Amino acid sequence: MLTAEKVFLLRNKMRNLGIDAFIIPGSDPHMSEYTAAHWKKREFISGFTGSAGTVVILDEEAGLWTDSRYYLQAEEELEGSGIDLFKAAEPETPDYADWIAERLNPGSTIAFEGEVFSIESARKLSKKYKHYGISIDPNQTLLDDIWEGRPPIPENSIFVHETKYAGLNRNEKVECIREKMRQQDASHYIITALDEIAWTLNLRGNDVSYNPVFHAYLIISLDAVYLFIDTHKITAAIGRELAVDDISVQLYSDIFKWVKDMPVESGLLFDPTTTNAKIYALIPREVIKIEVPSIVRDLKGIKNQTEQDGFRSAMVKDGVAMVKFIHWLEETVPSGSVTELSATKQLKKFRAENENFKGESFGAISGFGPHGAIVHYSVTKETDIPLTADNYYLIDSGGQYFEGTTDITRTIHLGTPTEQQKSDFTMVLKGNIALGTTCFPEGTRGVHLDILARKPLWSKGLNYGHGTGHGVGCFLNVHEGPQSIRPNDNGVAFKEGMITSNEPGLYRTNQYGIRIENLLLTLKSNSSEFGDFLKFETLTLCPIDLKSIEPTLLTHEEKQWLNEYHKMVFEKIAPHLTDNLKAWLKEQTKPI
Amino acid sequence: MLTAEKVFLLRNKMRNLGIDAFIIPGSDPHMSEYTAAHWKKREFISGFTGSAGTVVILDEEAGLWTDSRYYLQAEEELEGSGIDLFKAAEPETPDYADWIAERLNPGSTIAFEGEVFSIESARKLSKKYKHYGISIDPNQTLLDDIWEGRPPIPENSIFVHETKYAGLNRNEKVECIREKMRQQDASHYIITALDEIAWTLNLRGNDVSYNPVFHAYLIISLDAVYLFIDTHKITAAIGRELAVDDISVQLYSDIFKWVKDMPVESGLLFDPTTTNAKIYALIPREVIKIEVPSIVRDLKGIKNQTEQDGFRSAMVKDGVAMVKFIHWLEETVPSGSVTELSATKQLKKFRAENENFKGESFGAISGFGPHGAIVHYSVTKETDIPLTADNYYLIDSGGQYFEGTTDITRTIHLGTPTEQQKSDFTMVLKGNIALGTTCFPEGTRGVHLDILARKPLWSKGLNYGHGTGHGVGCFLNVHEGPQSIRPNDNGVAFKEGMITSNEPGLYRTNQYGIRIENLLLTLKSNSSEFGDFLKFETLTLCPIDLKSIEPTLLTHEEKQWLNEYHKMVFEKIAPHLTDNLKAWLKEQTKPI
Repeated sequence: MLTAEKVFLLRNKMRNLGIDAFIIPGSDPHMSEYTAAHWKKREFISGFTGSAGTVVILDEEAGLWTDSRYYLQAEEELEGSGIDLFKAAEPETPDYADWIAERLNPGSTIAFEGEVFSIESARKLSKKYKHYGISIDPNQTLLDDIWEGRPPIPENSIFVHETKYAGLNRNEKVECIREKMRQQDASHYIITALDEIAWTLNLRGNDVSYNPVFHAYLIISLDAVYLFIDTHKITAAIGRELAVDDISVQLYSDIFKWVKDMPVESGLLFDPTTTNAKIYALIPREVIKIEVPSIVRDLKGIKNQTEQDGFRSAMVKDGVAMVKFIHWLEETVPSGSVTELSATKQLKKFRAENENFKGESFGAISGFGPHGAIVHYSVTKETDIPLTADNYYLIDSGGQYFEGTTDITRTIHLGTPTEQQKSDFTMVLKGNIALGTTCFPEGTRGVHLDILARKPLWSKGLNYGHGTGHGVGCFLNVHEGPQSIRPNDNGVAFKEGMITSNEPGLYRTNQYGIRIENLLLTLKSNSSEFGDFLKFETLTLCPIDLKSIEPTLLTHEEKQWLNEYHKMVFEKIAPHLTDNLKAWLKEQTKPI
Repeated sequence: MLTAEKVFLLRNKMRNLGIDAFIIPGSDPHMSEYTAAHWKKREFISGFTGSAGTVVILDEEAGLWTDSRYYLQAEEELEGSGIDLFKAAEPETPDYADWIAERLNPGSTIAFEGEVFSIESARKLSKKYKHYGISIDPNQTLLDDIWEGRPPIPENSIFVHETKYAGLNRNEKVECIREKMRQQDASHYIITALDEIAWTLNLRGNDVSYNPVFHAYLIISLDAVYLFIDTHKITAAIGRELAVDDISVQLYSDIFKWVKDMPVESGLLFDPTTTNAKIYALIPREVIKIEVPSIVRDLKGIKNQTEQDGFRSAMVKDGVAMVKFIHWLEETVPSGSVTELSATKQLKKFRAENENFKGESFGAISGFGPHGAIVHYSVTKETDIPLTADNYYLIDSGGQYFEGTTDITRTIHLGTPTEQQKSDFTMVLKGNIALGTTCFPEGTRGVHLDILARKPLWSKGLNYGHGTGHGVGCFLNVHEGPQSIRPNDNGVAFKEGMITSNEPGLYRTNQYGIRIENLLLTLKSNSSEFGDFLKFETLTLCPIDLKSIEPTLLTHEEKQWLNEYHKMVFEKIAPHLTDNLKAWLKEQTKPI
């Protein structure tokens, strides 16, 4: 079916039901970063295959809102669809909600599918349109009948994430959660974010790309645990384990029935930013609603000793792969046979040589020259270009290991960097060092630390347009909360055990991009009458391109840090290398 | 009348009116930092004379909440009053609002005088007590009948702040304000903060200590200006000026009648954090209320070229006074005759030698040794101690000049500082330099910059418990908004023309306190594809105690900054000194 035909069918349905606007986001019922094909309704209706975007269908107009990564792709994919492209990142582009409001009269109805809207975002829409006298119908699944051949919900088997990697077994985790529930007077807690369910139960799955999660809902009461999951996913062995742990397995789709019929004397705890609006609408009126940031998100963000050690060992594996990869680039690029795409394949191959490697943690950003300046560049067959010795190559990638999840960026020059390139690179490095070496009192948040990574760039009139750091899961999502390092205040203080990326960069449009990313573990530092202090340990193990560094721009302390870091990289990585590679690494990590 | 008698009379009135709790804050109808005696109701009822505190009277209990500065004083002043002291800074002390709620039953009534509560704080109370089923009566002036011999509202004359100092005349300012009003669809704007009224009209007064303001209200409509003020304050000449400028003068107390009778088709703009609840209650229901941060606060925060130049010239005067003072300390302290109190008198005397000096901008904080570690130390006859050469002397003070308002802190050792003292001093200095020399993109807020002043201290496990910077008025309040430099996000970005203090410190309880404070002017820096950048100019001109600096702890750039700063101080201050003092200053500002 052509896009135009699908839209035609949808508009017919809208007219029959008196719906004036229908909103189709790209999300799933769990507000996941990566969604399974079953939930790609925005892709179905519009033909647009990018990872982010929202479609709005009115009776005579239709639009897709997406960000700058996808302007070109969206333009091509929308051709002939009758859906207009709205470039969401441009200041003059209206917000889709405002765009709708400008086009509808009071008394109109806007519909969407509550299952794929978070409570919070559905509320924002309600609030906005109330002002305009426009009503909201959050219970319309108009595409279900139109979508022929819709892929089923994934039925992949789940597997156990062993306690030797997780540090705590699922009963211990459930007890931690219940303690926090009691503090909030909650009798029940509904968990819908897939990584939170996976973490709680020490289970993993294969339902989406990159994130080892599975589709499920979880309800924890003070004396029971209900897992709502497609039974195909559960092997006999896991079924027995769950039975032993007194976890009641229910059908995935029965979550809605359960919520509707839940005990009315309950105090139900949920996070309105991840729980979907369909569930919310079903909660019996008498139930006391306790809306708080997810308990599991906060517990999961603090890595226990086993997880911390796991990350350290995953970093050795990942570092070995990265070292082999950079050495391979040096050897192979001169032949002209390496492209952005083939490089990512080779890197994945090196990572796969490691025990317990379970795939990439995200689609590698592999950008040569001008492509490196596109922050979220995603190489395709159409954009692929060969690597040469003339410019910077930026590679941002990561692996999933049972022991932990990695995320690393290195920027490599295979020839001779210019003075400007060296200065740029060194300013980015100074920011990375300043953030990685700071110590700070408890209570300090990401909004406070963000400037450390930027200040050296600012001193030269430079800056970067993205955040500086995000939380990283343990054999889970490479992007997780609660902490982040950004100019916006998220209200979350750093805690011992958190793992956060440190990734300042610099992007010169049409020239090159530079980013240096390490993962940082938060640890206790000293205590005094002035407070309890925290510090970071740099976990990532991979040399930083020495020939891109202008030593005169580094302070004595910065040089010292770099030399110590490189010494550590050599000591930890070299034992896993051939003599040839060992000698090469020695050179890459020599003191400056 | 004894405090106990006053409380007895008040309780009688409360019983007659069915009031179960009466709240008496220390504020005035303009939410001023310094209040005139007329509004010191909290002081009248309790006998407590401190600058901050709230009294709550219940039928059988009564309490005063104040901060750690006043624990000792409050204990003495409350003795025999039947009013208990609540130490507001202690974590176990309940908030007064919670304390009341715990003691009253649903159906009770809490009363206060809406005129001395901001709309925002009255709303917070309403919201809290609604939850408990307790009602609020914001219209009770129970103390008015009890307070015999209440001082009148000050009747001091106002005077003109000439355009040659203000940069813009009052008509130009009113037009700027109207432009902002139109952007908000406001037909009327009520201004109640005294410094905002003074700024708008280029008038100043003498109604309270330190702040050159006068009691008034101001209403600006799109075609008229109404100044509500006691007519005694207005000289014939100013009366003529105001008439020429079409400013209608009304009685101070007629503001309430005006609001009650205001045109109902208006859009009334006001700031709920400074406008009082009595005014709010009188606004006709039909009037559209536009609640936004004060327009004048934001305009006033950005100093025009004349004001910027005025500050620069005020800094020369203030620097001359400070240099004379520090020299005098060196000469006189050895005799044993200088105390904390006598030092402040001498400093004021030096300041008063300057043309256009109009008094101190706040009560100087003059703390020797352990007293310097008390952040808000206010020396009294009882606490006064002599200065010696054994320890640090911290002097935080400022002057009011027609050209601008100053605020400076220097910490001086008149003997030989210990290694720890030098290290502490140098860390504070490093923070001051880091903040003062940074450049940053537009959009940067105080929450981002705060860490720059703290990071060197953090690296040694040290910190300070106060904010790093506040806005400063131009011949107005020494504390003003909208910007600040603090760990809390106020949402306000730095703008060209803002003047902000830079005052990191370190306080070792029972030992000494160190603070180095300069004022910073925000200026444009470079612009590029990476954004428009801003930087600071250090305005304050006074040497920093060289013998307290440990040079090995400073980077090359920090030494360079210090030497350049001292060179500038000498060049600008020396022409105003005797040869003897000039030679002394040369030594104080020599390069390290």
